[in-house]
Amino acid sequence: MNNIEDLNITVVGLGLIGGSIAKAIRKNLKVRNLWAVDLDINALSESKKSGIIDNCYVDPKYPLQNSEIVIMCTYPDTTLDFIKNNMIHFKQNALITDTSGIKGKIVTEVKKVMRDDLEFIGGHPMSGKETFGYQFSDDAIFLGANYILTPDESNTEDSVSFLKEILLKIGFKKIVETTPQMHDEIIAYTSQLPHVIASLLMTNSKFEKSIDCIGGSFKDITRVADINCDLWCQLLYENKKNILSELSVLINDINNICDIINNDDLHSLESIFKKSSILRKEINYEKA
Amino acid sequence: MNNIEDLNITVVGLGLIGGSIAKAIRKNLKVRNLWAVDLDINALSESKKSGIIDNCYVDPKYPLQNSEIVIMCTYPDTTLDFIKNNMIHFKQNALITDTSGIKGKIVTEVKKVMRDDLEFIGGHPMSGKETFGYQFSDDAIFLGANYILTPDESNTEDSVSFLKEILLKIGFKKIVETTPQMHDEIIAYTSQLPHVIASLLMTNSKFEKSIDCIGGSFKDITRVADINCDLWCQLLYENKKNILSELSVLINDINNICDIINNDDLHSLESIFKKSSILRKEINYEKA
Repeated sequence: MNNIEDLNITVVGLGLIGGSIAKAIRKNLKVRNLWAVDLDINALSESKKSGIIDNCYVDPKYPLQNSEIVIMCTYPDTTLDFIKNNMIHFKQNALITDTSGIKGKIVTEVKKVMRDDLEFIGGHPMSGKETFGYQFSDDAIFLGANYILTPDESNTEDSVSFLKEILLKIGFKKIVETTPQMHDEIIAYTSQLPHVIASLLMTNSKFEKSIDCIGGSFKDITRVADINCDLWCQLLYENKKNILSELSVLINDINNICDIINNDDLHSLESIFKKSSILRKEINYEKA
Repeated sequence: MNNIEDLNITVVGLGLIGGSIAKAIRKNLKVRNLWAVDLDINALSESKKSGIIDNCYVDPKYPLQNSEIVIMCTYPDTTLDFIKNNMIHFKQNALITDTSGIKGKIVTEVKKVMRDDLEFIGGHPMSGKETFGYQFSDDAIFLGANYILTPDESNTEDSVSFLKEILLKIGFKKIVETTPQMHDEIIAYTSQLPHVIASLLMTNSKFEKSIDCIGGSFKDITRVADINCDLWCQLLYENKKNILSELSVLINDINNICDIINNDDLHSLESIFKKSSILRKEINYEKA
C-alpha cells in the first residue's frame, strides 16, 4: 500500500458519518486529496468552503478513477447500488470500504460484483448520534469508539493493516475484526435492540401524560428514539432474523423477571441486579 | 409558615439524594440551621467539615425537636420506620416530606400514624444518578429537573406553596402535583421500566462476547444498570402491580413490532419510528 500522504481518498455520502469521517481525516491525516461525492449540493459546498474536503463531486467518475481509497458512507441499499453501478470507474487496486450497520448482505453482494483487482473490506463505526445530516457531523464522535471490520480471505493482510492504521489515526480506539455474520448477530443486540426499545417506550400511550415525570433514566433509554426512519427500516429489514431473535430473548427475560417480581422472589431479583451492576461497570472501565 | 431564614431544616439520610439536597440548600437558601441525621459517621463528618451542614446527628431527637422542616432521604422502608419511631420527637407544626420513589404506600402508612399538628407531603425528585452515597452527591443534578409532590386534603395550601417555593429555589425547574396512586402508575413507566430493561439487557448472555461492539445507544440504554440493588428491590416490591402492568404492555408492544418486522410491514414500522421521533423531540424541547 502507498504512504498515506500519497493517497487520494473519496468519501461517498456526506451525511453524519461521512461528514464526521471527512472531518477526522482532515484533522488527523495528511493526504494528497480528500474528495467527497454526494447528491446534496449544500453539504458538498459547505464542506468545501470550510476546507474539510479539497473538492466535491455529484458525478463520481473522476474521484473514483483517481482514488486509492473509497469510503462508502451511504445507507446499505445505496452503498450496494453505488458500488455495482460504478464498478467500471474504480481506480485499479483501489481499496473500498463501507460504514453501514449491516454487513452480511453488503459483503456478500459486493463480492459478487467485485473486480479482481479491487479490494472490499466491510466496516462499521461503533459511534453515531441521534441526529443525521452533514450539519451534525463531528469528528469527536469517534474518539474512544471502537470500529468493526469484517475482512475475509479475499483481503490482503496489507490492506487490512493499512485500513486499521488509518482508522486508529483518525480517532478510533480499537479495531475489532469479526465475520459479517457475527457482526450482524452482535449488532442486533448492541444497537438494533436499543433502538427498537427506545421507539417502543416513546410510542407507549402513557407518554403524553407522563412527560412532566421523567428523569435521567427515561431520557437516556429513549435518546435514540429520535430515529432516522429510512435508515433504520432498512437496517431492521436486512437483519430481520437476528433482531427477531433478540426481541424473542428479551420477551423471555421479561417474562422471567415478571415471575420473579410476582412471586416476591427477592433473592433472584437481587442476583439479576447484582450481576447487572458488575457487568455494567465493565463498560465504564472499557470506556475509560 | 415561617420565613425561610428562620427555619431549622433537617435532612434525614445523607446519601446521594440527601447529600445533594443539603448541598442545594446550602448553596441557594439562607436558613437558620441545616442539620443532617444519618448512621454513617463518615458522610456526616465530611458534610460538616466542608460546611454543607451546620451540625450532624446520629440520634435524631434534638434536630427533630427543633426543626420546622424535615426532609426524609432514606429508602422507603427506612422512611416509614423512622417517621413511626420518631413521631413523638417532631416539633409542633413541623412539615415533613420525603423523596422516595414510591408514594402510595408511604403516604398511606405515614398518614395512619401522623400527629394532628404535623403535616406530611410526599415528594419525589425526577433526578438521580447511577451511583449512590454521599460522595457522589451534587446539587447540580437537580438543575432543570422536575419534582413531584403528592399533597392531599390533609395538607394546607400554605404548606404546599412553601415547600414548592423551597424546591424551586434549590434548583428544580417545575413542581408537578399528582396523587400518590397516579405517581406510582407513572413512575413504573418512566423510571422503573427503564431500570428493569437496562438490567435485563446487561444480563443477556450475549454481553460478554459483544463488549467490543457497543456504541452510544447501548451505553445509554444500560446506564442505570449499575443499580442500587437494595433500593430497587424495595421499589419494585412496593410497586409490584404497576411495574408488572408496564412490563406486560412492553411485551405486547414487542410482539407487535415482531409481527411488523416479520411481515416486512415497512409502512407500520415507519409509522412507529416517525411517531417516536416526533415525541422524543418533545423531551428535548421540555429540557431546553
